[in-house]
This record gives sequence, C-alpha cells and structure tokens, in this order.
Amino acid sequence: MITELISVGTEILLGNIVNTNSAYLSEKCAELGLSVYYQTVVGDNETRMRETIQTALDRSDIVILTGGLGPTEDDLTKEVTAEVMGMKLVEDRHSRKLMEAYLEQYKKNNPQRKITANNYKQAMVPKGAIVLDNHNGTAPGLVLEKKGKTAILLPGPPGEMRPMFEESVFPYLRKKQPEIIYSQMVKICSIGESQVAEEIEDLIESQTNPTIAPYAKTGEVHLRITAKGKNEKECKKLIKPVVKELKARFGRNIFATEESKSLEEAVVDMLKEQEMTLSLAESCTGGAIAARIVNVSGASEVFLQGMVTYSNKAKRRCLDVSKSTLKKHGAVSEECAAEMAKGGRKASKTDICLSVTGIAGPGGGTKEKPVGTVFMGCSYKGCTQVREFHFQGNRARVREQTVAHGLAFLRDCMMERADKENN
Amino acid sequence: MITELISVGTEILLGNIVNTNSAYLSEKCAELGLSVYYQTVVGDNETRMRETIQTALDRSDIVILTGGLGPTEDDLTKEVTAEVMGMKLVEDRHSRKLMEAYLEQYKKNNPQRKITANNYKQAMVPKGAIVLDNHNGTAPGLVLEKKGKTAILLPGPPGEMRPMFEESVFPYLRKKQPEIIYSQMVKICSIGESQVAEEIEDLIESQTNPTIAPYAKTGEVHLRITAKGKNEKECKKLIKPVVKELKARFGRNIFATEESKSLEEAVVDMLKEQEMTLSLAESCTGGAIAARIVNVSGASEVFLQGMVTYSNKAKRRCLDVSKSTLKKHGAVSEECAAEMAKGGRKASKTDICLSVTGIAGPGGGTKEKPVGTVFMGCSYKGCTQVREFHFQGNRARVREQTVAHGLAFLRDCMMERADKENN
Repeated sequence: MITELISVGTEILLGNIVNTNSAYLSEKCAELGLSVYYQTVVGDNETRMRETIQTALDRSDIVILTGGLGPTEDDLTKEVTAEVMGMKLVEDRHSRKLMEAYLEQYKKNNPQRKITANNYKQAMVPKGAIVLDNHNGTAPGLVLEKKGKTAILLPGPPGEMRPMFEESVFPYLRKKQPEIIYSQMVKICSIGESQVAEEIEDLIESQTNPTIAPYAKTGEVHLRITAKGKNEKECKKLIKPVVKELKARFGRNIFATEESKSLEEAVVDMLKEQEMTLSLAESCTGGAIAARIVNVSGASEVFLQGMVTYSNKAKRRCLDVSKSTLKKHGAVSEECAAEMAKGGRKASKTDICLSVTGIAGPGGGTKEKPVGTVFMGCSYKGCTQVREFHFQGNRARVREQTVAHGLAFLRDCMMERADKENN
Repeated sequence: MITELISVGTEILLGNIVNTNSAYLSEKCAELGLSVYYQTVVGDNETRMRETIQTALDRSDIVILTGGLGPTEDDLTKEVTAEVMGMKLVEDRHSRKLMEAYLEQYKKNNPQRKITANNYKQAMVPKGAIVLDNHNGTAPGLVLEKKGKTAILLPGPPGEMRPMFEESVFPYLRKKQPEIIYSQMVKICSIGESQVAEEIEDLIESQTNPTIAPYAKTGEVHLRITAKGKNEKECKKLIKPVVKELKARFGRNIFATEESKSLEEAVVDMLKEQEMTLSLAESCTGGAIAARIVNVSGASEVFLQGMVTYSNKAKRRCLDVSKSTLKKHGAVSEECAAEMAKGGRKASKTDICLSVTGIAGPGGGTKEKPVGTVFMGCSYKGCTQVREFHFQGNRARVREQTVAHGLAFLRDCMMERADKENN
C-alpha cells in the first residue's frame, strides 16, 4: 500500500529541530511492507496544510501525519484533515475524561501554571474516528477512514508519538497488510562505491523480487536486499541465493550481513575470535578511531589502550619514536607510522597496534605531502605493515575517511595474520 | 522569496538515514531570510521525482535539491530537473578535468580499484548552469536558472553538501535577497535549554526586529539574533543592544559570539591565553573528547597527549589509579575520576588534565549507578575537582553529552583557575 508521511510544524521548516519522526516512521513502514513514496513537511498554515493533505490523500492509500494536535491556535492538523475528508468534529467523552484526569495531575505538580480552556479542544474528534489514547501527553491520536483512504494523526513529540505508534498504530497497520516485507543487509569495506555498483550492475538490472539497493557510507558500502512475500520464511528463501551470490563476488570484503553490525563491531569480534588485544596510536585522528572502537559495548575485553600522540613530544615519550626519524622523515611518514605502531604495541603490551599519522589540513601540507596524506601502520608479532593514503576534502572529511579506512586496514591485517598462522 | 527543499533518496524513505540535510538547509535559509514553506523527500523514482520537482518549481521561487547526483543508474536528480526546466545536458570540460584528477589520485591510492565509465556521467551538466566545484567528492553542484525560477542541486552526503553550500550557495543566495539580513550568534554552554528559554522569554515575546531564535545543540544552546535592514551597518546597530543584554544575562556562560567558533575552539583559545598545556584521560568517551580538541587546527601547541584508558589495566598502568580505589569504589566513581585526572597530568607532564569515566550503557548499570552516570575530574596545580552527571538516552547519546559537558567543565575549571590566580 502506498504510504505518505506529513510532518506539521514551522519549527522543522526553520531548522530548529531535526525531523526524526519521519525517519522513525519510515523505518517502521518498511518493516510493515508499506511503500513510503513521499515525506513532506509543512508549516502551521491552513491553506498550505489543506493542499498538502489533499494531494497526499489523492495519491496515497495511507497518510500518517505528526504534529499540530496540541491545544494552541496554531494546532490545526485535526481540523484541516477532518475538513478535507468531510468529517465533522464532535466531543469524545472518553478523551475528555482522560484529559481532565491528566490536567488534574499536572496542576498538582505545577500549581503556578494555569489550565486554559484551549486544552479541551483536544477532546474534539472527527465523527467515526478511532481514538488512540495518549499515555504520555494530552493530545489523543486519531485514525480516520473514508472511501478506502486512511489518515493517521499522531502527536509531534517523539516521546508521545513513538509509544502510541508501537501500541496502537503498528498492530492496526499490520492487519491491513496482506504481504510481508523482509530485508537483509550486506555490508562491504575496502572497496569503493562505484566499483561495488559496477560489480552488481547485472544483478540490479535484472532484479524484481528481491531488490538490491546500495547505500554509500564513508569507507563502506551497504547493500540492502529486500523481498516481498506471504511470510518471513518465503522472503528469507528469496533472499538467500542473492546473499550467496554477493558473498561469492565480494568475499572477505563483506564484514557484516546483519543490519545492526558496524565495522568497529566486526573488528572487535575478530579480535575476540583471534584472542588478540588491541592498542591504538593516533595522531591526526586524535582519538576518533578509539572512540569508534569504544562504540562497541564490551570492547574493553580486547581494546586495552589508546594513545593520542598529537605532538611530537608525545610521539617520542609514549611511543618511543626516534628523534632521527622525526627529524629525517617527519612525523607524517612511512617510517614514523611504523615506529608508532611498533612502539605503541610495546608500550601497551598488546598483541596488535594500529597507528595513524597524517596531514588533515587546512595547514601543514607540502608539495610532496599535500593535505590528505595519511600513513597507517599496523604491528603484530613478526610483522609491521604500512599503508599510504591520499584523501580528499576538508579537515573533518580527511579525518572521517582516515578513521573508516583505519578500521578496514586493521581488519585486513588481522585477516592476513590469521592466514599466515593457518598456513 | 519562497523556498522549498527536496531531498532525493530512497534511503531516507526507508528510514535508513535521518534527513539532517533539510534541518541544516532550513537553518541556513532562515539565516538568509528565505521563507521555507515545504520540505519534501522523494525516492529515486523518475515519475515521482518529476512531479515533485514540477510542483515545487510552480509554487516556489527557489528549490534546493540534495542527493541523487552520484554515478549510479539510480542517480537521476540532475537529469530530471534539467528535463523539467527544459535544459539540455552537455559535458562540462572543467568538471571532467577535475573528475579525472580526482580519479587519477584515487587510482594511485587504490591501485587494485577499477575506474568505471559511470563516473564521467557526473561531468554532464545542464547547458547554461552554474557549476559548483566539489572539493570533497566527485559530483559537482549545479545552479539552474530559468524564467525567474532557481533550482540548486547539491550532493547528498553532508560532508560534501555543507562545505559546498557555505562556499558557493550561501553567497549566491545572499546576492539574490533585496533586503539585507544579518545575524549574529551567541553560543552558551553549562546551562540547559529550558533555563535559557525561561530567561529570555520576555525578550522573545516582545521581539520584532531583530528576532531571537534558540537552537538546542548537545550541551550547548545557540541564540541567533537576526535583523533585517537596508545594509549591514543598520542591522549591526539593531543587533548590538540585544547582544549586550544577553551578555548581561548569561555572562561567562557565553563561549562564543561568532558563528564559526566551536566550544573546542573556545577551550583551545583559553588554553593558549592562559599558557596552559592539556592532557586528557578518557574512559567511556574512548578518545572522543581528544578528537573534538584535535578538530581545532593548531591544537598541538597546547594539547600534548590523550590517554584512552578504557580498561582498568590501562587506568592503572597509564594513570596510576590505585588498585584499592578500583576495588573499593569502582572505575566509575568520584575517587577514580580524581585519580585519573591527577595521574594523567603527572604522566603527561601537562598543566591541566581532564578525566571522564562513566557508564554509557547498554550494560553496566546498577541501581546506585544507573546507565548515564558519569564522573569527570579536572586537575591543575593545587586543585583537583570532580563533577557528577546523569545523562539520559542510549550509549551514543550518553557519550555525546559526556563529550560536550566535558569540554564545558574543562572551560569552567580554567576560568576558576584564572580567577584564583588573579585574586
């Protein structure tokens, strides 16, 4: 069923708040197999709201609106939607009672605040609507059905909207859906977006059910495989051969086949499997790789220590980088990256150490080593590797890419190490 | 001028990513005095994209589109917009050259990667369009003007879109505006959003020109004062007394009155002024505070060393936290935070050291110390302070708040230290 989301609120149009409601509802709709074709944001303006709602009801089966259900003059979502759908407003006794109880409690906690008559406007509902109780605020949610079209009105604050959606709207929509949608993620690192796109071009061109959608992230490419079917089992059966084919094409560059698994989690899992402890010696990333690793709950088992050695002094003192290396080759050099990794491993007494040193800009670039030049070192027993990178973009972009490619490089080195050990 | 934002991307309609681009652009448009009436999200579907763009160009003067400029088959924004506006695509030599240089560099760094012909599709531009260079990726931005309507096409990744907007689009739009709009930012830390809102309620209620708009950021509140006038001088004159009043109300909690100045920059500036060197001892934030400090170009002058001591072992070895403290009070305690700060200062031989230790979740919480409990320590000559925080939200939110409040705490301590010295 074609679904459309409308967020009502001038504060979104002014950029005062980020529209997280639409992201939340979109994800839930995808889970329910509803095809969201549009998200719209419109302000608290009657004319524009009317047009937006009319257009949405014309082209979609289900329209979910958030915001504009409050007690102020500006809150018009219910009035306008009812008008567009040709439904009259009547007082809902149950809502009126709930509201009275809520306001009673509120008054007790906030004796200095006045309760305005406006509040009772929230108990007026379109005749024939399904009323959804709001356990976290005063504005009830509403489901309006007419001539095969459905409008669902939810309060704007996420703390009221989300519980109401989960409790009432999700089961309501699930019943409406004859078909199930199921999707699986395949996450790839160490290959660029366009190469991935090219290698699956034939698959994407011939796809019907399931479909493959690529998402480019910094240093990663995610492929979402989505199937429609009668039930989850049928969907999984449709997805399985596609995942198998992707595994054959991308091999070890696939670091996860679960939606929720991040690259840092894949790295931490690999460390645990290989029973390796990790340390990090960071210069230009200034601790950002460590912060990514610590994203993983329970990383402390394997991640023993991070050293942020942004100054040369710290590189010498903490990592024992030699004076002559810094003098002869500079802090941003193959030699320095290697010594940082070796020294970091020694100082932290860990099995493996990743080091990064580079020029993030805006200053510090030279003709030989322009901004974006990054050296990474990785040291484990019997081996120290160095890789050179040249990233594009401003300081933040260079560092972001360094972090992502640093994690991928660490993963590559760990796989190599395990290969050597097994041979 | 009526402005409308269109984000193109099925990944937004699936809820895979939150639409932060629209929030960013809305804020910038407000700053420019452009009235944003609608934000729309549409998928990578030719028919729906055409309808959406047509509707937007009919009802608005300026349409800003983000996303769908990449090299894949799915990327259709440029093609469809050019078609709707009746403009033909031609190869742009300059873009082609830039792309070749970018890809050449990319090939050097990634010798195993193939460059696909797809990439060159990005050098095709609508005839007569203004081409905006992309210094952080391959897809150029575009400005299309026809019959009094303007379409601005920007790449979807925020790391590419934002610098392009600031460098090229902002000045372009500013020129289009007949009236001058001028705004100044007042940035506040160490006070909550609702307290700020309450303290300026009277100012906001009585405002006409200039206006004050509050934006809540993590650990910060930004107040944008915007004036309309004939020229910059007139605007500045209108803004001056408001800034003065805000300074009187918020005093030292104001850390910046410049748009571009970040909290970490304010901290680094203060360190330079006070001639102090800094070290950081981070547990639950895992290097994220260090990464924020290293955001500041030239931070190496004052930031000597970061220690990421996520494990107890590292807390003991690097920071000399005593065994008995860890055993008796635990790693997340006032005592441990104090010892971490003192030990970190000693180990790094710096003038001041900030430490953080806390429970970011999802595991590790107890009744006495629930998830979100964070202790911070700050040590300088003759003084070690500890502050306790209780943050709400998931792991990422707790850490994000810890980083922001950590920087604010460090700033507070430095001001106190300077006060003591001056008395």
